[in-house]
Amino acid sequence: MVHPKTVLAEIDQQFPQSLARLFELLRFPSIGTDPAHHGDCRKTAEWLAAQLTGLGFKAELRKTTGQPLVLGRYAPPKAAGLPHVLFYGHYDVQPADPLELWTSAPFAPEIRKGKDGKDAIFARGACDDKGQLMTFLEASRSWLKVHGSLPFRLTVMIEGDEESDPAHIDSFLKARAREFPADVAFICDTEMWDGRTPAINTRLRGCMGIEVSVIGPKIDLHSGLYGGPVQNPIKVLSRILASVHDAKGRITIPGFYDGVKPIPPKLRKQWESLKFPAKKFLGEVGLSVPAGEQGYSALEQMWARPTAEVNGIYGGYQGPGSKTVLPSEATAKLTFRLVEGQDPKKIRKAFKAFVKSRLPKDCKVRFDDSGGDSSGIAVPEGTPWVNAARKALKEEFGRDPVMMGAGYSIPVVESFKKHLKVDSVLVGFAKSDDNPHSPDEKYEVDSFRRGIRSWTRIIAQFATE
Amino acid sequence: MVHPKTVLAEIDQQFPQSLARLFELLRFPSIGTDPAHHGDCRKTAEWLAAQLTGLGFKAELRKTTGQPLVLGRYAPPKAAGLPHVLFYGHYDVQPADPLELWTSAPFAPEIRKGKDGKDAIFARGACDDKGQLMTFLEASRSWLKVHGSLPFRLTVMIEGDEESDPAHIDSFLKARAREFPADVAFICDTEMWDGRTPAINTRLRGCMGIEVSVIGPKIDLHSGLYGGPVQNPIKVLSRILASVHDAKGRITIPGFYDGVKPIPPKLRKQWESLKFPAKKFLGEVGLSVPAGEQGYSALEQMWARPTAEVNGIYGGYQGPGSKTVLPSEATAKLTFRLVEGQDPKKIRKAFKAFVKSRLPKDCKVRFDDSGGDSSGIAVPEGTPWVNAARKALKEEFGRDPVMMGAGYSIPVVESFKKHLKVDSVLVGFAKSDDNPHSPDEKYEVDSFRRGIRSWTRIIAQFATE
Repeated sequence: MVHPKTVLAEIDQQFPQSLARLFELLRFPSIGTDPAHHGDCRKTAEWLAAQLTGLGFKAELRKTTGQPLVLGRYAPPKAAGLPHVLFYGHYDVQPADPLELWTSAPFAPEIRKGKDGKDAIFARGACDDKGQLMTFLEASRSWLKVHGSLPFRLTVMIEGDEESDPAHIDSFLKARAREFPADVAFICDTEMWDGRTPAINTRLRGCMGIEVSVIGPKIDLHSGLYGGPVQNPIKVLSRILASVHDAKGRITIPGFYDGVKPIPPKLRKQWESLKFPAKKFLGEVGLSVPAGEQGYSALEQMWARPTAEVNGIYGGYQGPGSKTVLPSEATAKLTFRLVEGQDPKKIRKAFKAFVKSRLPKDCKVRFDDSGGDSSGIAVPEGTPWVNAARKALKEEFGRDPVMMGAGYSIPVVESFKKHLKVDSVLVGFAKSDDNPHSPDEKYEVDSFRRGIRSWTRIIAQFATE
Repeated sequence: MVHPKTVLAEIDQQFPQSLARLFELLRFPSIGTDPAHHGDCRKTAEWLAAQLTGLGFKAELRKTTGQPLVLGRYAPPKAAGLPHVLFYGHYDVQPADPLELWTSAPFAPEIRKGKDGKDAIFARGACDDKGQLMTFLEASRSWLKVHGSLPFRLTVMIEGDEESDPAHIDSFLKARAREFPADVAFICDTEMWDGRTPAINTRLRGCMGIEVSVIGPKIDLHSGLYGGPVQNPIKVLSRILASVHDAKGRITIPGFYDGVKPIPPKLRKQWESLKFPAKKFLGEVGLSVPAGEQGYSALEQMWARPTAEVNGIYGGYQGPGSKTVLPSEATAKLTFRLVEGQDPKKIRKAFKAFVKSRLPKDCKVRFDDSGGDSSGIAVPEGTPWVNAARKALKEEFGRDPVMMGAGYSIPVVESFKKHLKVDSVLVGFAKSDDNPHSPDEKYEVDSFRRGIRSWTRIIAQFATE
């Protein structure tokens, strides 16, 4: 390892220029989902490619089924044996409306104090993801200026469809996987644990969605005439849904927990030490008692345990008042949040078998599989990449980063895993009140500065004299 | 008892005139629910009042909150000590559309052969209820012609709101109960058991409707972010609904069966002897296996056992595809079919307590009571009125009438019970394929003739030489 002292000094010294470059980027209204802004997306991609060229990378724009993908490739002079890093970010932003709720115009970035009195850059995309992706580019710039070369091969990949449709980059990667050999993917699009404590996200839950319809009588019937001997599909469906969990909140579908590993004791210990205020967290949504699987903390339930949720249900009469109908069918939409080790396809099959085994002889069932599949992902906390990030963040912030999980999936992480066979390490510097997707989106000036410094420290972990 | 031989001969002899009078009545388009036809309803009521006057009854039209009510009162010369009979029918009919599906115009009655080759009167209202109510009036007419007087006091009550809103006659009877002393109500608006077997309906199930909403988090949440420690109201509601019945189909709400008496062994024996083809009955609606309360035949389940049905359910996302929402609330609409002895108000209370006892600490519940209450009704099979009808029908058809139940409530029966404290005996001659409420409604010529003859035989049961 090379001590990054000189580079850190360089970063602080030329920070105004870093900010100026970020402001240039923030001025592009690169709303990927809006065809009226597709020209702006291309201009943003061209600007980024020019930046990468300026850093000495081989930059190009690649056609996708969506917005152009920005690629920058770099190999140090003595590349043999050096690892290959893939860095990912996205230049597309959420639409800015409602515009009247913004204090300053969304594409006219300005620095002012946030509610907590801290200087922040206000603009659409400030934290999601332009500010965050620039932390890595600015770190690379300063490192290259001081040392002349990076200690790894690098591919920078910046897409323009993250906010609209993950299918574009997925199909691009699927078709061109061989072009992107990599040992690790770094993604800068996540939050810190809190204002003082950095975080690395190594766990994401996957999701399997399925719709189940129970069909009883072939037509809706009068519940007075037929009530009694006729199967009621709402009752049948309710019984099936009620049996998905046991009294302890554990899912009863045979084989559901196959492959689920407990989290490492060290990780559990760290999560316990966070003293996550479950009551306060639930209080914000009008609840107070953690429900769910007994024997696991609320945090573990959200970050590392699989779940079965019913997202919607309907059947029979749903209008005002009463109607004495005995309905022909009832439908529920479910999603299963999955963790590493669970196979979504197997669980889809197991759920279907579970439903069928509980179906009265006379009822039929129909499944809709269009809800899709994604696997849960966990990067072992002890890989050199995670360790490098952990050490670097601790040096920068003076505190051990929290090894976080996320309850939801990030599609590009799964695309990397599936097509490139590469694990992602998610390091980000956003704060929980940065308002991504909302008016007055911001990124703290300090997040930007310490983000650049943190990446520099991560780069340093791989450098030798 | 007087043998009705002479009257029966008179009936057969002047049957063409009876048909002609029915045709006159059928030509009125007395669609009670349609304001455009309210004039026709009044004309129909006036025509009926004139008929009653012609029979020597004191006839009048009474104002209600709906269409005019036709009343005809009769007292024989030596009325002292004679019972008082209330006869009920309705002159309003269902709308006739879709008109293009009628073989002949709905208000231009004609006799032609039905699908089974039997002569039938085709017209809207032919069986429901003009043909049926006229059976009693024509029987009275012939009896009076032969014998000069009826063997009981009589009030004929023919309403014009049966198909649209039972509240009109209910509020009328509630306010004027004292005007209508009666020992029994005969109602002619039901079916025979089958083409050869007459029926008396003495049991009707009541109905209690209630809507229950379970409320969890105060807003819809992302099921990835919150799935685990947050209560899902669809799951909570499903569990509650699933626990309403035990594995044997028995309702588990404490006190639910309080007051429910088993049916008399003789009645059960008759029902068993009917060899009700449950498989065929269920087969017609796409099912095959009787569900419901174990230990009871399908017929008993429908006619004499209380039920709990879920008529509708909704919550969360119900559109196409998948949405990872953890909804704030879920709602189910239930109706409980009740039998004699059960108190709808107590059961409403018991259900609410049942739900609350199963509610996780954090969830709230909201009930909507607008579904209304009605009690189950059973007329003891051994009253003189039921016995008279039974004997008379057996004489006419050569077969014991089936003592039927009905799974649904007939509101006017409950109004009679509640306000006039009088039991109803339901005797009707419709066939199951008569299409009331549908195009090509019909009433068999033979139903009309034997209906008149049957009422004559019932009257004869009370006559003395």
